[in-house]
This record gives sequence, C-alpha cells and structure tokens, in this order.
Amino acid sequence: MLGSVKGPHDVKRLAVEELPRLAGEIRDLLVDSCARFGGHLGPNLGVVELTIAIHRVFDSPHDPVVWDTGHQAYVHKLLTGRAAGFEALKQEGGLSGYPSQAESEHDLVENSHASTALSYADGLAKAYKLRGEHDRTVVAVIGDGALTGGMAWEALNNIAAGKDLRLVIVVNDNGRSYSPTIGGLASHLSSLRVNRRYEDMLDYVKDKIGNVPVLYDALHGFKKGVKDVLAPQVMFEDLGLKYVGPIDGHDEQAMEAALRQARDFRGPVIVHALTQKGRGYTPAENHDEDQFHSPGAFDRATGAEKPKPRIWTNVFSEELVRLGKERDDLVAITAAMLHPTGLNAFADAYPDRIYDVGIAEQHALTSAAGLALGGMHPVVAVYATFLNRAFDQLLMDVALHRLPVTVVLDRAGVTGDDGASHNGMWDLSILQVIPGLRIAVPRDGDRVAELLREAVEVGDGPTVLRFPKGPVAEPIEPVGKLGEMDLLRTAEGDGAAEPDVLLVGVGPMAQLCMDAAVLLDAQGIATTVVDPRWVKPLDEALALAAGAHKLVAVVEDNGRVGGVGDAVARLLRDADVDVPVRTFGIPQEFLDHAKRAAILARIGLTGQDLARQITEAVAKRASAAEPARR
Amino acid sequence: MLGSVKGPHDVKRLAVEELPRLAGEIRDLLVDSCARFGGHLGPNLGVVELTIAIHRVFDSPHDPVVWDTGHQAYVHKLLTGRAAGFEALKQEGGLSGYPSQAESEHDLVENSHASTALSYADGLAKAYKLRGEHDRTVVAVIGDGALTGGMAWEALNNIAAGKDLRLVIVVNDNGRSYSPTIGGLASHLSSLRVNRRYEDMLDYVKDKIGNVPVLYDALHGFKKGVKDVLAPQVMFEDLGLKYVGPIDGHDEQAMEAALRQARDFRGPVIVHALTQKGRGYTPAENHDEDQFHSPGAFDRATGAEKPKPRIWTNVFSEELVRLGKERDDLVAITAAMLHPTGLNAFADAYPDRIYDVGIAEQHALTSAAGLALGGMHPVVAVYATFLNRAFDQLLMDVALHRLPVTVVLDRAGVTGDDGASHNGMWDLSILQVIPGLRIAVPRDGDRVAELLREAVEVGDGPTVLRFPKGPVAEPIEPVGKLGEMDLLRTAEGDGAAEPDVLLVGVGPMAQLCMDAAVLLDAQGIATTVVDPRWVKPLDEALALAAGAHKLVAVVEDNGRVGGVGDAVARLLRDADVDVPVRTFGIPQEFLDHAKRAAILARIGLTGQDLARQITEAVAKRASAAEPARR
Repeated sequence: MLGSVKGPHDVKRLAVEELPRLAGEIRDLLVDSCARFGGHLGPNLGVVELTIAIHRVFDSPHDPVVWDTGHQAYVHKLLTGRAAGFEALKQEGGLSGYPSQAESEHDLVENSHASTALSYADGLAKAYKLRGEHDRTVVAVIGDGALTGGMAWEALNNIAAGKDLRLVIVVNDNGRSYSPTIGGLASHLSSLRVNRRYEDMLDYVKDKIGNVPVLYDALHGFKKGVKDVLAPQVMFEDLGLKYVGPIDGHDEQAMEAALRQARDFRGPVIVHALTQKGRGYTPAENHDEDQFHSPGAFDRATGAEKPKPRIWTNVFSEELVRLGKERDDLVAITAAMLHPTGLNAFADAYPDRIYDVGIAEQHALTSAAGLALGGMHPVVAVYATFLNRAFDQLLMDVALHRLPVTVVLDRAGVTGDDGASHNGMWDLSILQVIPGLRIAVPRDGDRVAELLREAVEVGDGPTVLRFPKGPVAEPIEPVGKLGEMDLLRTAEGDGAAEPDVLLVGVGPMAQLCMDAAVLLDAQGIATTVVDPRWVKPLDEALALAAGAHKLVAVVEDNGRVGGVGDAVARLLRDADVDVPVRTFGIPQEFLDHAKRAAILARIGLTGQDLARQITEAVAKRASAAEPARR
Repeated sequence: MLGSVKGPHDVKRLAVEELPRLAGEIRDLLVDSCARFGGHLGPNLGVVELTIAIHRVFDSPHDPVVWDTGHQAYVHKLLTGRAAGFEALKQEGGLSGYPSQAESEHDLVENSHASTALSYADGLAKAYKLRGEHDRTVVAVIGDGALTGGMAWEALNNIAAGKDLRLVIVVNDNGRSYSPTIGGLASHLSSLRVNRRYEDMLDYVKDKIGNVPVLYDALHGFKKGVKDVLAPQVMFEDLGLKYVGPIDGHDEQAMEAALRQARDFRGPVIVHALTQKGRGYTPAENHDEDQFHSPGAFDRATGAEKPKPRIWTNVFSEELVRLGKERDDLVAITAAMLHPTGLNAFADAYPDRIYDVGIAEQHALTSAAGLALGGMHPVVAVYATFLNRAFDQLLMDVALHRLPVTVVLDRAGVTGDDGASHNGMWDLSILQVIPGLRIAVPRDGDRVAELLREAVEVGDGPTVLRFPKGPVAEPIEPVGKLGEMDLLRTAEGDGAAEPDVLLVGVGPMAQLCMDAAVLLDAQGIATTVVDPRWVKPLDEALALAAGAHKLVAVVEDNGRVGGVGDAVARLLRDADVDVPVRTFGIPQEFLDHAKRAAILARIGLTGQDLARQITEAVAKRASAAEPARR
C-alpha cells in the first residue's frame, strides 16, 4: 500500500479502515531501513499516526509543515513520495536524514537544531497574512523536549499575540527528547506517567473529555479538575493560546478530529498529542536509555546493535569520572544529552553533581557561570554545533567574568551523515574572539585525558576541549617539545638542517600531517610536524619555529575561515615573521551528508592531497622567486 | 542621610520612618547625575524602594544579588557605599553604569545582556547547596521585559525542578523594557493597566489580598477569581514555582514583608513587584516613548534633552522608510528596541509591517527566516552586540536556507560608555564563517543609504549592514573604482607609479586611513586608500591591487581577531600573493567604559598612530630585506 502513496493526495484517498495497514507498513519500512543504516528510529515510530493525520487534514505544501527537529520527519518523507529513497537513507547521494528542500517541495526547514519550528511558523503565518493568502494554514510539529529550549518560549509568547495567524502547533509529547525531558513543565506530565500506566492515562482522558476534543479558551474555566490534572494547557492558556487535548497520538481518527478543529479555528491553536517513542517495535519500546532514539545499524529480530569501536567520547567519559573522584568541586552539565556526551558515567558515580538542563544550551552555560561564581568548576559537555546556541553566554557570562568553566565539545569537525547542521565546523573560528578563553585540541585518546586534566586545572577563565565523532585515533608519541607544543617529527635526511616546510597539525589532523610529511620528504621537501595541543593562545615558540622554515601549513578539522590557520598567520604577522602560510580545513560551505571519511576525502583532507598541494605551493614559491634572482 | 549609608548594614539600621527620606535623596541624586551625564534614569527611579527592601531583608554579599540587566543597579550602588562615584557616572575612570566586580564585593554580574540573571542565580544556589552553605539565599531581580527572553524561561524551567534551592526571584514588573513589553504574557498585565488606573489596580490588589502577601502553592487553588485576574502567577505555578504577589513595588514595607516571607520559605520563590518606570520625576513619568529609559544629558528642571547631532541611525531610519514605500514586501523586526534602532519611523509609516518580538533575538532571526520563506524580505535591526544571541539562528535558520534577510547592526564597533558588554566588536569576526552571508560596512551616511539599498536587493541569502554609534561621518567621495570597491585615494607624487602601502579602510575607518595617508605620503611612503564597501565576500580585485604594493594594512572598528584583516590576509594567501599584511583593530579584550573617541585614542585607532605604526612596519621590512640584497 505504501508503494501506491505518491503524495499527500493518496493519503487522503485511503479509507479509514486502510490506515492501520498503512501505519504497519510504514513501521516495517522504518525498522528495516534503520536496522541497515542506523537512524532516528524511536522518534519516527512515535509519529506515524500523527503524520498520517496531518497529511489527511492539511494540504502540504500549500499548508506548510515544519518539523522540530527534522529527525522526526521520516514518516513525512514516506508520505510525500520518497519511500524508495529509504533504500539509501543517510548514505552519500541518498535520502537525507532531515527535511531537504532539494528532495521535495514538502520540505522547508533543513536545520536540525531544536526549538526553532514555532519561530519559522510564526514568520510563515505572518507572511501569508500580509500577502493576503488567507487560505493557508501553517503546521508546526514540536516535541515536548524542544519546548524546554528558550526560543520555543520566545515564539509562543509572540504567537499568542498574533490572534489572527492561521497556525496549528502540534506538541508531540512523548515525555522524552533523548532521555526523559526535564524541568518544571515536564515534571507535571511525568508525574502523571509515573502514577498511572500510559494506557490508563489515555482512558482517563477519553472518559473525561471524550474522543472529540474540546477547544476552550484561556481563563474561561472548563472542568477545572481535569485542567489541574492535565497541565500544561493552563500554561498555554495563560499566554492566551487556544488548546486542544491531550489527544492519544496513536489514535489516528482522534488526531484527525483534533487537527480539523484546530485548522477551522483560523487562529493559533496548540494540539497536544501524547505519543510513545519507539511505538510498535518491541526492542525500542523496551529500550530504557532512549527507545532507540538514533541507533546505529542493528539486528532487526533482536534489536541488538552491532558492537561499536572505542570512540573519543569514551575516553573523555572515563577520565572525567577519575577527575570527579579527585576533586569534589567538579560538576557536570548536559543539555538533554546525558548518554551521547558520555556524562552518564559521571552521573552514575556522582549523582549530586550532574545537571541535565533540557535542550537549553544558553542556560547550561550561564548556570555554569553561576556555579563557578559559587566556587565550583563546571564541565559542560555538548555537541560542537550546539554550542553556537550559547556563544553569547560563553562570551559575556563566563569569559567576561574570567570564570573557570570547561566546555567539552564532542562531534567537533566533520560529523558526516547527519548533514549540514550537525557538522562541528564553527567552534574553532568563533571561539577565537573570546578574550581569555583557552582551547585545547587532542590528537588522540591519550591527549584527551591529558588535556582534559590540564583544562580543569585552569582557574582564571574558561577552557574548551574539542574532539571529533567516531573511533578514537591511535596515539602519536612526541619526539620532543617546542615550548608547550609537541614536536611530532623533525625533517629527515639532507633537509634536517634547513627544513623547508612546517606542518601544524591541529588535533586529529596531526596524523594526516605525519602521512603527508613522509610523502614530502620522499620528494626532497624536508618537513617538520608539530601539534600545538593548545591552539588558543598559540605558543609564541610557533613564530620562532616558523621563521626557520620556508613555508608553514596549518591543517584543521574546522572551517577554513577564522580558524587556527588564520590564528597562526596572525601570530606570524604580529611577530613580523613574513614566512608564507597556507591553511587547510573544511571549505566554508554547508556540507551534504555522507560518511566522515568520505567527506574528508571529498574536501581534500587526506595525507596525499595535502602533500600534493604543499608540493605545488613550494613549486609556485620557487618559480615566483626566480625573476628576483636574475 | 545617603551620605551616612556606607553599606547594607547602614540601610538596615535606619528606622522605617526614615526610609521615605532616603528614597527621596536617592531619587534626587539619580536625577542630578543622569541630567549631567545621561544614564539609565527611568529604570532606576522605579526600583528605589524595591532595592532598599532587598538590602534590609538580605545580607549582601553573603546573600548575592544579581541584577538583570545591570542598568537597574544604580540604587544598589548607592546603598553599597558608592554614592560619591556618581560624580563621574559612566565617565572614564569613574563609576561604571553596570555592576562591576572591581568596584564592589556586592557586584557579581557585569554582563548587561538581558535575561541572564535567573541562570546565574540557579547556578549560584546549586553551588551553595553542594558546598553546604545552607544559610545563603540568592536574590535575582529581573524585569518583565527580560522575561520575554528565552533563556529566562529555560532558567525558570530548571529552577522549578530545584525544590530545595534558596532562591528569591524578584520580578520588577513595570510593563515596559525599552518600550511596552510585548507578547502574550505581557498582554495579560497590560490589559489590567488599560482597564484600571495604576493606583486603582494596587488598591484592588490590597483589598483582595491584603498588604501582607500570601504564599501559595501550585495547583492548590486560592481565591481562583483573583488568580484569574492577576496573571501571570498561574503560569509560574504551572511550572511548580511558589509565588508571592503582586506587591506594590513602591510600598517599601510591603516589599520587605514579601521578601522576608520568600526568604524564609527556603526554596525558589517568585516575588512579583509592580513598579512604575520613571517614578518620582515628572518629566520621566510623563515621557511616552520610554520614561527616560536611558537619556543623554538633559535639563533637570524641564527634562529637555540637549539637541542631538544627526547619527548613523537616522540615516538608516529614513532610508528604510523610503524603501518601504517602494517595496511592499519589506517588513521590519525589532527585539524590544523600536526607537533605539530607528525603526519607529518605519512603524509609523507601515504599521502592518513592523514586528516587535520582545527581548528575543533568537525569535527575531528565525521568524525572519519564516517571513522570508513566505515571500517577504525582513529587515532585522538590532544592536551589534546583541546579535551574538542569534548567531546560531542566522547561520542555521537563515543562511542554511539561503533566505533573503537583511540584518542591520547599529552600535557596531566601539560604543564606549556602556561598558564591555555593549561594544559591538564581535560581529565582523564571527559572521565571517557564515556561508553565503554578505556584509556591507558603510563609511559615511551616503554609503548607509546606498548599501542598505544594495543589501535588500540581494535575493539569494542574508545580508548584514553595520554602522557605529554616534554622529554620522562626513562623506568621502571616491576618486575611482577598483572592482566593486571605492578607490578613495591614489598615492601621490613620486610614489604614484610604484606605491608602497595599500590602506584598506573598513567603513568609518576609511577617514582614519585618509588621515594616515597624508602623513605617510609626507614621509615619502606612497599610500593608496580603498574602502571595500562589501567586506564579505571581498572583491578579488583586492588581491590584484595588493600585489602592486609592498605592504597592505587593514583597519577596522572590530576585534583584531578574525575580522576583515584576517579575511584580507586569507584572500591574499589563497591567491598566492605573499605581500606582507598588517592588521589594525580593537585589541581582543573586554574594554573598560569611556567615550568612544577616548577609547579609539587609547587603543591606537587614530590617523597619527596608524601612520606611525605603518612607518615602523615599512622600516622593519626594509632592514629585514637588507641582508638579502647584499
């Protein structure tokens, strides 16, 4: 049946009796694809009926549907003619794991950072109103987890003021984002879930309100008893927003009824759907940690994930537990990513010293500033790309007050198959501007432990430690020191006395520099390799070392613009060392999804490519120098 | 009496009958100082009694007081022994207009960006709990305007989960931040204010609740009728937070009673104080626009501000009105800064096309993305330093989707007397990393109009226009073009054929380069001056021009790290043009407050300093080149 669904019109044509079969086929395909390639299985199993109902009630793309975050849009993709693409989900050249404008007119928002959908929807609805397109309704689907993000609240506050905007907000409330949603709002709902079983709860709702939802008004009471039990609608109503629900998000017909009512209201309405993450696939339903939020490939029959190699995160996770034992002033903060950041081990060991603040990076950093003002040393662990949300807080709340906060950036550099908005290619650039901030980039697991230890010892300002996604790199032992830097390799053979090229390998790019150096030496280009370890501030010894070479090349797993390469060039300029510098990194563009290794090869970040480009640069320099010699 | 108050202990010692006189003296001094130097008069007149009550009930600094934003901390400064400093408020070497750790142990948070206090307070309270300092209570004072910022909500959601944190949140509700607070939450309160006069309202509250406030619990009803009228406590209670109020914030004894009750609860409590911005100074009370939020110097008797010169903002404001007439797809967005950004003129002309989103820069940018997706061209006007709050949204919501949104940054570069967190010295650096973003920097008023026009014509991605605080610069007419760049000056005399130095003047720094060029030419250093106009992307013609000079110097009113200077150096490297580059800008540190001109002189951004440094650089190059020539 799914094969016959080429778009929303086909979904609308199906008889009600056929929908359970459609839902079943969708779940089958979701489990199959994710078992093969990995993917956001749990969230999508939870929105099958909800998404079918949306496409039966609304008219996408005339009525645009915005997904927050985009990882819950698999079912939407299946219903908008992209079932075939699940053969190569998240693979290079295949279907993206997020909405994609290039894939379909039904996709609008490609960004996968959370809590944005309501703001997009507010803007879209305002635009339609201004343009007189009064028959268009904007639909935004947002998880209860994403509601913990401040910008969702900013949007709600504004939407509540726009009485005539045609805007339906579907709150997909599964009580979990990655892990259980935290905070005052969530505790209302979770207390219900703890006290009653899920099905009992839904029966209770149906009994009190009936299957046909009732639309009611702010401050004009309706069954106060029920209202008090079924928060958070009171909160939405305080803002002046209409509210429908809660609805059983797996009862497709109830969802349709609620959405129709909301659509026909012709003003902003919240539809509160209760869903179950992982619904319909037993291993996901029973998975305590995150209901298969985003597993790698797994065995479909058992749900067993393939064994994973030791990753960078593991090294950090273990070392932080050791440090926590040595120092009782260390506390850890996560923004709804306890397991993905490896902080779960610290949480198990020191349950009083861990804070999950929700999808709220701003609060993560500024509450860390408060903790540091109060005498603690917070370690905030976050994916590199999400720190962009808290740039201002790291600058103005932490650094301005010279507070000892350590920020650990996982998934820094090219991450790959999660697409453009997950690559951690911004931090080494934007963090350069923060006065007093120190940044360490470990090249291997040993250095993760060593530099984390050094970072938390800094007492007069913030520190950042950043490492990539994936298996941890093999150790490279230094052959010496240059100031605080590790000298990894001196030029060999004839060139040792007057070396040609200084390669500066930032973090894991050190290995790539070592590979390139062998190739360069073989061509008679005498090559030195250093790893600065701390890239901000840079060691002054680097300027001295650079002056002894004919060319300096910096390689980093970060956007080329504004990163360590630019910083090295500036260091040299400021020291009046005018040795030519060449910088290598990620081209400053949004990258299509593919495996990390494939992307690195595509953008020329391999030892061979580096050696070739440096050879060319050396040759150009030589020929440019020729005329002067004559 | 104020002269005898050396600290909070003296405030506590005063008899209740003496407090009105103290309040009167404080208001007198506030009006006097602000009349002389300008300053945040309106907000501080509103918190006189509230601040006295805080210092009588709590024990600062043992009980830390965090002000959000710091501009409402003048009274706090007066009560903590700094009355004498008001002789030179905001003047170089004098008292800062914000809390300052260097000034007093009673000051903790120096950052003046809004909506942060609750997160600091959450962190501080957690630290005291972990350290066993159970007798310390954290006090946070936050305006209703700052509650529209998302990070305040993130904090509330977390604080609600920390039942045993000793934390008193004072909501200073004057219904206005700069201009009337917007959104669903605010409309509750403002509807009350519209329906009854202010005094009537307070009488009503006293009548219903009595002067002694009552502390009550979430979801356990109390006088439901009153609750419904007196939102927003229902909202706070939904989060599970205790709530006291509303209290007349000018009734010092009522405030004390409420604060005592809150303090003794030993858990997080919100105290809701209703205050009047500008209270006690008639010209401020009657000032419709913003109740003297932050006037310049004025006549104390009449409240008349001194005539102001034409500033950069005026030029933008007028040109946008012209553009709005030509194009009905232009809409404007402000984050609670309608007048300061000059958007009020656009609002008056096109009331359907202006959106004030509250202190919510994140929502400003992402709702702009939505508007652009819906076919409009939004112009978001914001102070440069506040754009840091929405970096992620500009990157991932606007630029990733190549949406036509124009961001206008006022107060870019050194602003001066508002202190470290108001300087707009970050944007030209962090914005460099955003793929597809174009940045224009006008050097004078004519260029503001010209470049704004070019910016809103760009249809395939975001644009930024940035200009400084203060009087608009005199026009400099180009003598020619170099690609898209304006050639402002060619080297004169003997050097014209083989010029020595290429000066790249970014925006208003062009004038400084012109000044320096005259001095350099006089010393026989033949100097060319260009203004790139668009600094991202840079014109390729710049690399060609650079190759014809012996030294390139870039001057910008932005942090030296990662700005246009680094971008020019990268452009040259990537083009294999290894002409030495020197970069001049703001040293990468947090600047102490002083007038803009004084700071520019202090950091060497004058024509004379520039000429001197370039002369030295040229001399160094010459002597370094000597040995090679032999």
